[in-house]
Amino acid sequence: MFDPENPPELATTGWINADKPLTLKALRGKVVVVTAFQMLCPGCLEHGLPQVKRLAQKFNPEDIVVLGLHSVFEHHAVMTPAALQVFMAEFKWPFPVGIDAPGDDDIPKTMAAYQMQGTPTLLLFDRAGRLRRHYFGRPDDLQLAAEITALAIEDANSPREQAAGIEHKLSRALRTPEHQHHDHGDNHVHGPGCNHEHGHFHGNGHSHAHRHD
Amino acid sequence: MFDPENPPELATTGWINADKPLTLKALRGKVVVVTAFQMLCPGCLEHGLPQVKRLAQKFNPEDIVVLGLHSVFEHHAVMTPAALQVFMAEFKWPFPVGIDAPGDDDIPKTMAAYQMQGTPTLLLFDRAGRLRRHYFGRPDDLQLAAEITALAIEDANSPREQAAGIEHKLSRALRTPEHQHHDHGDNHVHGPGCNHEHGHFHGNGHSHAHRHD
Amino acid sequence: MFDPENPPELATTGWINADKPLTLKALRGKVVVVTAFQMLCPGCLEHGLPQVKRLAQKFNPEDIVVLGLHSVFEHHAVMTPAALQVFMAEFKWPFPVGIDAPGDDDIPKTMAAYQMQGTPTLLLFDRAGRLRRHYFGRPDDLQLAAEITALAIEDANSPREQAAGIEHKLSRALRTPEHQHHDHGDNHVHGPGCNHEHGHFHGNGHSHAHRHD
Amino acid sequence: MFDPENPPELATTGWINADKPLTLKALRGKVVVVTAFQMLCPGCLEHGLPQVKRLAQKFNPEDIVVLGLHSVFEHHAVMTPAALQVFMAEFKWPFPVGIDAPGDDDIPKTMAAYQMQGTPTLLLFDRAGRLRRHYFGRPDDLQLAAEITALAIEDANSPREQAAGIEHKLSRALRTPEHQHHDHGDNHVHGPGCNHEHGHFHGNGHSHAHRHD
Repeated sequence: MFDPENPPELATTGWINADKPLTLKALRGKVVVVTAFQMLCPGCLEHGLPQVKRLAQKFNPEDIVVLGLHSVFEHHAVMTPAALQVFMAEFKWPFPVGIDAPGDDDIPKTMAAYQMQGTPTLLLFDRAGRLRRHYFGRPDDLQLAAEITALAIEDANSPREQAAGIEHKLSRALRTPEHQHHDHGDNHVHGPGCNHEHGHFHGNGHSHAHRHD
Repeated sequence: MFDPENPPELATTGWINADKPLTLKALRGKVVVVTAFQMLCPGCLEHGLPQVKRLAQKFNPEDIVVLGLHSVFEHHAVMTPAALQVFMAEFKWPFPVGIDAPGDDDIPKTMAAYQMQGTPTLLLFDRAGRLRRHYFGRPDDLQLAAEITALAIEDANSPREQAAGIEHKLSRALRTPEHQHHDHGDNHVHGPGCNHEHGHFHGNGHSHAHRHD
Repeated sequence: MFDPENPPELATTGWINADKPLTLKALRGKVVVVTAFQMLCPGCLEHGLPQVKRLAQKFNPEDIVVLGLHSVFEHHAVMTPAALQVFMAEFKWPFPVGIDAPGDDDIPKTMAAYQMQGTPTLLLFDRAGRLRRHYFGRPDDLQLAAEITALAIEDANSPREQAAGIEHKLSRALRTPEHQHHDHGDNHVHGPGCNHEHGHFHGNGHSHAHRHD
Repeated sequence: MFDPENPPELATTGWINADKPLTLKALRGKVVVVTAFQMLCPGCLEHGLPQVKRLAQKFNPEDIVVLGLHSVFEHHAVMTPAALQVFMAEFKWPFPVGIDAPGDDDIPKTMAAYQMQGTPTLLLFDRAGRLRRHYFGRPDDLQLAAEITALAIEDANSPREQAAGIEHKLSRALRTPEHQHHDHGDNHVHGPGCNHEHGHFHGNGHSHAHRHD
């Protein structure tokens, strides 16, 4: 069962724009922003990738790590690692991208493990490696900048209570139209994106309503 | 001499979109964002006002107060309070606006007291009423959202050391192209804006390089 | 009664960015684009004026004359000629602007004569001085460029039949969603704009459905 | 030698969004707009394809035919017909696209025949099948709308003199910064685009400076 306090490792078969494979474990101590995308998903090209590019250009990569994850759940024959390589080079995306490992039923492993609904999906991890936000669709820049900053201010070894205190201050500071945010990682901002059929996620006896505080 | 630890009160002669006059003193305990603008300044119409509108729509006004300040330093006969009233109503700006009190040499009092170089100018105050940022020109959305969030996380009664600690974390989290930020309120992001002749500011024996920590 | 074949002269009390008063009569032989605006109308600032600026920068002013007309129907005490002068200088609008002459019931004379519904309104005149298009709201750039070009290709002394032939070719070339265009000047593209109460226009016994061919 | 009066036929190996292969010959009588692109060329995604989509949505496809041509000159292993099929379906481009036939030295046949410098390239053909414009890079919307409209007004069987007359009127109507247009198809609007090494074009003893009137 999915536990945002102890989320699964990224399962990847290769990396572009990185010297060596990146893992959540090795990135402990930093805030990590992951965008799961497909190179031919219009919502990723129009919104998701330009947005994380802006984040990567604004935040210091020594402290806030922005990553892409190529989570292909359709058209596998076309969105290959070789095609991704060309895509990354031509568009000059300025962040490392991992290739989500092939899984069952067309859904790659990390995508399945995190129960993503489609692309683009954005995940925010705190310095302790906990999953703190999970957006499907189009969160806005101000929201993400606020949330990343709040995570940046938490200490790496902070107890869960410190995080809860900062989350409380953040939720007080932001308006909350349409349940824009919760205390953990299951916010789904609906908007144009590529959905997959995800029946296979929801027959498995667990709920999205996990909480961790 | 200007002291960002204890900045001057807003000097105003009237308010629009407010039940009663607003003061920094009465807003202690909240984070305060002030945009000083002129209703016929192109940089204010194109950048400054739409940006603080986005901020006002994203942040909770109970906790993060966004204000406008109409600081007219040119064309006084045209940018009158009556004209401002029409401007506010027609454009439906969703935040209170104070009218900067007339001063000497065409420069209104608050503008002079804060040594603003022109419009739009953006000021950020912390919960303790200290001036923490001063931008002239066009800071970007991500930068402001990060800085406002950091201020939102500080306690109202925090000692200066807590603020310094959070500032340290914020400066570690952000890239710093071109001295994008300092610890206090004298960042000037140059870009299209309306400058005034400010010789009268710089012959008065003090420096912009005041620091407070 | 309004006759687009022989439309009324612009009634103005002054000009900015012009050496001398401009008249439709003196501009015969050229295509004339007129945008009627108010300096504090949001739709004019956001759409109408930037659009005619693009037109003025694309088309040759020796052949295609772009004009503004300050048609104030509300807040007269604030949108004065002196205020307009500041507005023109600060925003550097690169075209001449006439001041629509005060009329009855707050509606200026040219605005009334052309039965405009509000601002921004865009009028296109052919080389023979006939009114060929009348838009209220937000026509798009491609539409206007196509229509201006068609008018540019008509001869100055062309009989009405040549114009009809070119109109026929233009209407064949363009899609026509929602009656986007007719053969003359009464297209109203609705969208955000400043409307005036125009009951006083429609009790006077004539119809908008005048035709001229 | 390239003759814009009698330009080469499109050489294609397949079509998407079309019932049957399209040819310039069969389209005689209509104005034809061709954008040559590569599905992973950033300038095509950002500028070229959205622009021709706007054109396709504005002009009547019975009279003004907008086509894409997938002219792959690099990364052939990745930008395959199968990948193009996915790209067209995912992005819902609303116009037919032909696949430029493989040629020598990586340059596909139509691209070579028209001496294109890279992608995006935009070609405008008149009703008589003559090439009238050739842009490499980023022409603007107003320019293209004006030129397409001028071609739409020419008769299908017009003698070259009629076309010259309309071109004259068009060139009088438009400003001409940086030789924005000539009388025929060799305008190169430089800007971000994907260039190929085109040395192999320029050793073949002919000039770009062909003229036809």
